Amino acid sequence: MRNGERRCVKLDERALLLTVGRIIGEDRIRDDCAVIPWKGEYLVATTDMLHRSTDFPVQMTSWQMGWHSAAVSLSDIAAMAAEPLFLLRSVGLDDPDLLGGIITGASYCCRENGCELVGGDLDAHSECTVVSSAVGTVPPERLVRRRGAQPGDLVVVTGVPGRAAAGLAGYREYERYLLEPSPRIREGVYLGTIGATSMMDMSDGLALSLYDLLAAGGHGFRIDSSAMPGLKGVSGEEYPLFTLHGGGDYELVATLPPDREKDLLAGMTVIGTVIDEEVVLADGKELEKKGYEHHWTG
Amino acid sequence: MRNGERRCVKLDERALLLTVGRIIGEDRIRDDCAVIPWKGEYLVATTDMLHRSTDFPVQMTSWQMGWHSAAVSLSDIAAMAAEPLFLLRSVGLDDPDLLGGIITGASYCCRENGCELVGGDLDAHSECTVVSSAVGTVPPERLVRRRGAQPGDLVVVTGVPGRAAAGLAGYREYERYLLEPSPRIREGVYLGTIGATSMMDMSDGLALSLYDLLAAGGHGFRIDSSAMPGLKGVSGEEYPLFTLHGGGDYELVATLPPDREKDLLAGMTVIGTVIDEEVVLADGKELEKKGYEHHWTG
Repeated sequence: MRNGERRCVKLDERALLLTVGRIIGEDRIRDDCAVIPWKGEYLVATTDMLHRSTDFPVQMTSWQMGWHSAAVSLSDIAAMAAEPLFLLRSVGLDDPDLLGGIITGASYCCRENGCELVGGDLDAHSECTVVSSAVGTVPPERLVRRRGAQPGDLVVVTGVPGRAAAGLAGYREYERYLLEPSPRIREGVYLGTIGATSMMDMSDGLALSLYDLLAAGGHGFRIDSSAMPGLKGVSGEEYPLFTLHGGGDYELVATLPPDREKDLLAGMTVIGTVIDEEVVLADGKELEKKGYEHHWTG
Repeated sequence: MRNGERRCVKLDERALLLTVGRIIGEDRIRDDCAVIPWKGEYLVATTDMLHRSTDFPVQMTSWQMGWHSAAVSLSDIAAMAAEPLFLLRSVGLDDPDLLGGIITGASYCCRENGCELVGGDLDAHSECTVVSSAVGTVPPERLVRRRGAQPGDLVVVTGVPGRAAAGLAGYREYERYLLEPSPRIREGVYLGTIGATSMMDMSDGLALSLYDLLAAGGHGFRIDSSAMPGLKGVSGEEYPLFTLHGGGDYELVATLPPDREKDLLAGMTVIGTVIDEEVVLADGKELEKKGYEHHWTG
């Protein structure tokens, strides 16, 4: 989850990403991970830079900073229906006392998700900066990209979108989804196995993710908000803000041929369908293309 | 190459590294790369965080920052006798205009060394920060670690140690070795193929590298400074400072059974032998355990 507003003041990220795409190839920047064929399988790889003022809520412990930063990258692995193999961690420290927690938290997150923290780099820095790079593997027939949805496919989400945003807004019962998100590795692998046609993680919220899938695949979506998993204890105008636009959940959104609906597991919910038109509709109206503006730095 | 002095003011890096070793395993922090067995080969992986005030000389262009940061990680791949497969790049930007150069430079360095820049992450940052993560592959029988030297083995260096330090000190003819170092991929692969028993890169200078090899393998070294490749145009007290203690060269130092001396290529020089004692001797005297203190930030 990133604070889009703060960053946009300094950087036009979309323009910069186009710059990168022109240099390394547009295909390289389209998915949650890069895909590298090797020995009959695919390696998938991702890197994420997080830092204190932008990415770590004030209440986050160093252990949670370590866990969270690993989870962000492992979630990208999950989004490709891949399994993580290892993770590297570079840490720029403004306070040496943070190191033990940052490494231990990352190490736990890796182990819980079937991979290993294998190494890293340390440096002094004016602001605590944590970079994770994760590598996973996936058989070619299971790989899922952002592009591939077909009109008529179902739109599926894992978990309950909006929990992290609710946690950030002060709902204590949801705080752990904000601070210690679980990358959906098993869910990603399963969705790939049953034939998901496109997938990504929802780190910037459901709405922005659907627009990203539209941009990648060329097909739109029709969402029924009443089909969304219920975010208990939240109501009023916060409800759609959190569930449709809230970031930081690291749940997955995927598309699936309708005949595979019977294979979905508990915790996977059909919330809509893929449509021909290049538009994202929620309850018949165009869904606003925005993430929830979180302001944890005050 | 890092500015050891500046960093030590803030961080006791050795103590911090021990902290990391206790958490992720001491074996994980001993070599230039982590080693991950997969599909009958080894993947090797490394990450490096560099930033402007500590790691980039003032005269460095953004293209050179991009190249240099990639070269640092690819050099770690070379030190394992591996070949690079891909590189990821996270950039924290204090100035968006730097991005094109940083990505293009990295992309060129990757291509020249047989791998690809496959993806990355962008963020705004108060100080330009560049993190490279590189992954390579090596057949198990060719892998070379820091541990493995046997008494009687020859000590071999590639290239001419000291050129980057000379470049930093103002010798213009050596500046390109400082700003655009070449990772010694082919040399590393070759040394592994002919049976090198231990290897690392010399980014912190020959002296510190020999002490690192001693710490990893338990055997010392006897070096003959007159056998070192000549650093032309430099003389007096600068000469040993650059050639024995100067950092930033990204040449390799390896040990090799004596019967393989005949296989060495041009540009590989025998400078001494591995000895039983846990000491590093240059011309019969204990070699000072220090890197050259570079002060490019004034």
